[in-house]
Amino acid sequence: MNTSEFRRRGKEMVDYVANYMEGIEGRQVYPDVEPGYLRPLIPDSAPQEPDTFEDIINDIEKIIMPGVTHWHSPYFFAYFPTASSYPAMLADMLCGAIGCIGFSWAASPACTELETVMMDWLGKMLELPEAFLTEKAGEGGGVIQGSASEATLVALLAARTKAIHRLQAASPELTQAAIMEKLVAYSSDQAHSSVERAGLIGGVKLKAIPSDGNFAMRASALREALESDRAAGLIPFFVVATLGTTTCCSFDNLLEVGPICNKEDMWLHVDAAYAGSAFICPEFRHLLNGVEFADSFNFNPHKWLLVNFDCSAMWVKKRSDLTGAFRLDPTYLKHSHQDSGLITDYRHWQIPLGRRFRSLKMWFVFRMYGVKGLQAYIRKHVQLSHEFESLVLQDPRFEICAEVTLGLVCFRLKGSNKVNEALLQRINSAKKIHLVPCHLRDKFVLRFAICSRTVESAHVQRAWEHIKELAADVLRAEKE
Amino acid sequence: MNTSEFRRRGKEMVDYVANYMEGIEGRQVYPDVEPGYLRPLIPDSAPQEPDTFEDIINDIEKIIMPGVTHWHSPYFFAYFPTASSYPAMLADMLCGAIGCIGFSWAASPACTELETVMMDWLGKMLELPEAFLTEKAGEGGGVIQGSASEATLVALLAARTKAIHRLQAASPELTQAAIMEKLVAYSSDQAHSSVERAGLIGGVKLKAIPSDGNFAMRASALREALESDRAAGLIPFFVVATLGTTTCCSFDNLLEVGPICNKEDMWLHVDAAYAGSAFICPEFRHLLNGVEFADSFNFNPHKWLLVNFDCSAMWVKKRSDLTGAFRLDPTYLKHSHQDSGLITDYRHWQIPLGRRFRSLKMWFVFRMYGVKGLQAYIRKHVQLSHEFESLVLQDPRFEICAEVTLGLVCFRLKGSNKVNEALLQRINSAKKIHLVPCHLRDKFVLRFAICSRTVESAHVQRAWEHIKELAADVLRAEKE
Repeated sequence: MNTSEFRRRGKEMVDYVANYMEGIEGRQVYPDVEPGYLRPLIPDSAPQEPDTFEDIINDIEKIIMPGVTHWHSPYFFAYFPTASSYPAMLADMLCGAIGCIGFSWAASPACTELETVMMDWLGKMLELPEAFLTEKAGEGGGVIQGSASEATLVALLAARTKAIHRLQAASPELTQAAIMEKLVAYSSDQAHSSVERAGLIGGVKLKAIPSDGNFAMRASALREALESDRAAGLIPFFVVATLGTTTCCSFDNLLEVGPICNKEDMWLHVDAAYAGSAFICPEFRHLLNGVEFADSFNFNPHKWLLVNFDCSAMWVKKRSDLTGAFRLDPTYLKHSHQDSGLITDYRHWQIPLGRRFRSLKMWFVFRMYGVKGLQAYIRKHVQLSHEFESLVLQDPRFEICAEVTLGLVCFRLKGSNKVNEALLQRINSAKKIHLVPCHLRDKFVLRFAICSRTVESAHVQRAWEHIKELAADVLRAEKE
Repeated sequence: MNTSEFRRRGKEMVDYVANYMEGIEGRQVYPDVEPGYLRPLIPDSAPQEPDTFEDIINDIEKIIMPGVTHWHSPYFFAYFPTASSYPAMLADMLCGAIGCIGFSWAASPACTELETVMMDWLGKMLELPEAFLTEKAGEGGGVIQGSASEATLVALLAARTKAIHRLQAASPELTQAAIMEKLVAYSSDQAHSSVERAGLIGGVKLKAIPSDGNFAMRASALREALESDRAAGLIPFFVVATLGTTTCCSFDNLLEVGPICNKEDMWLHVDAAYAGSAFICPEFRHLLNGVEFADSFNFNPHKWLLVNFDCSAMWVKKRSDLTGAFRLDPTYLKHSHQDSGLITDYRHWQIPLGRRFRSLKMWFVFRMYGVKGLQAYIRKHVQLSHEFESLVLQDPRFEICAEVTLGLVCFRLKGSNKVNEALLQRINSAKKIHLVPCHLRDKFVLRFAICSRTVESAHVQRAWEHIKELAADVLRAEKE
């Protein structure tokens, strides 16, 4: 394909994308296909001679779209939102064209420098403590990771390295393995599974702290675990506090947990993957109070801040803690500026070596929405979730299962898990809307997450009417 | 930005991208900026009210482009290529619009199923052993990782879990830490730094096997290390063989190393990050001989197969080895099909949870080039590197430092490291072309990698003329 054909096909693709977004409400949110649907629809090996672009664009509707779960449909209320906005898509086109691999400053200075400044912009929007910003030439700074899972893992590895160095400095006879055997990390029993995975990967114990009645990690439960583990000869070194859990958007008590971590010399990582975007609104900023105790903080603009996946924002108070865990400098990656102190080689901050020019997406989105536009977007979602909450509360057959703080409502039919499982099954079989469940303690609960950029009150109302109808069916079937 | 504005701006962006690609040869390949150049050019925080699209598009040339290293310039000969093609860019636009997060089959069946089939297509292009394909419903399969670094890490973690389980089954009293303390991984002393990093992250020893005169890992050196490590009570469990090293594109001897790994029950991971793309050509396929001994194999279509970053292709012979290292199933990620045996939840195959619909890029590229088009592309690059090699050989002041097999030429002035460092410094200061160096044993060497999709013989000739001129200057300066 030469450049002039790209001009033509690119514009056709822009129209295809625009048509898709415009018509998404008319598509069934969850597909009808069964596992294995796709393979019989396409050849079993790549063509020897080129296919035409027309062939391919036609196949999108024939082969791909029938198997797509439409995350940006206004009837998608599952998981958490994943961001989608036109400015981010435009930026991604530019990112693809520049196509630099920004592993070091020299590999494309703009890629590194825009990222550093965008992370400062975003940090200021959140009113992060200055220690996390690079602007003042302090020891902190921000980096774009691919996902919150990676951020948690990177933080755990940095904490592990730091703990090993500290303990070996005190007792040089200790081997790394002897120390690792005793290291313990902690998170709430409501934390995301990626925290447990980080522990598995890092080869350290991870213990779940029982959360309180509001599904929050509190000082007392953490202290209890620390005491019993220290008594057993273990070495607590890392705590993940979650702001906005995946199950029910609960918030660990940072103001209680933070000081304990600081006092006990444990790395505190704050994971606000979903909720973090809301902290740009002054009325939600209090939920971040206590971040000043953290060593690292992470949230996903690719969830709720209109920056398309992937863009997970992570800040640390001490850059050298991250780079110390990873730094290796082969000749082919050295460059003349790297020891100047002025520059950042982001490859030392992350698991992969390569990285795309993702800060362009932040730059486009922040500028084309403005902070006020982003705040308005968050507020609209929160308002819609409260609207759904009040609909649920008006129906005595239902109950709300956790406090509604941001854009997630956890609800269920009063009654057995079985009846709620049946309700969810009917909802997801009808495919007018799409939801996923969670467990809160022993209760099977339905999650209603405000997701789409284009969801409006009318969609929420329609979804609720639909849920009520199916609930009536379920309850009727149960009596029979 | 509403949809109708996106239609307009998207088409403007297509033209911007097309103009950029068309005019890239006229841009200086490496930028003039100094560290810290960008911050003073932009506001110190995000705007409250939206900026216009015109503001932003104008700022691209003012703020971003002056700091871009143009990886797709035909005068860029640094590192290794990073892929760029119009079909991949078109696919990426579609990927951004669909914007699904394909962590499970249910999260978007098309995303998972196209990936599985594309990995089979690609595996067949390479003539991978059937054990690596999913088509036959065997135990193997392919997955798209973000980078070769992640693939190596995932393989190491899977091997680690497998080794721990095996040893604990034989001796239940052994703790994980006690085993990890003794585990040893191996790679050639020419392996990429990401292998060492994987060892660091996984908390296991990594030993570098001295490579032979052709910078290849051979049986004898590996055996020697194994024997001495076993004698010292260590447990060899993992070997990374590299096909096409970053330094000089040397090839570890798979046919020697593979059988040892199989016999000694060590996981063999084959990393062909750069070279792998060439194996779609029958005349280069022999370089992959021995892959039948491997447990996992990886290469980066995002390097040399015209699929824009990121797209790192990884295959394993036993899917359960990967998923066994990572599998965790919280309620909010469960879905009704997951235990059917027919489907794949790729989140269990990788470090992050989220993943983009990256197989669309493969589908577009493979179809719009056809296998013959892709082969022609590889062959052109290899031909250009041999052309450069013969230019170097014609000049008695220079020497070739490693066999030229694919698209990389390692060369230097006969003489001291100092004179070669001076030559590279002049080249990269002149900024007409861009190169990076490497060390081969104690020699400082210049790497000339054929990178750009649009590089032609004329560019290579001009680059060589330029290098010769600067070499003359360096040699003259040295005599003075």
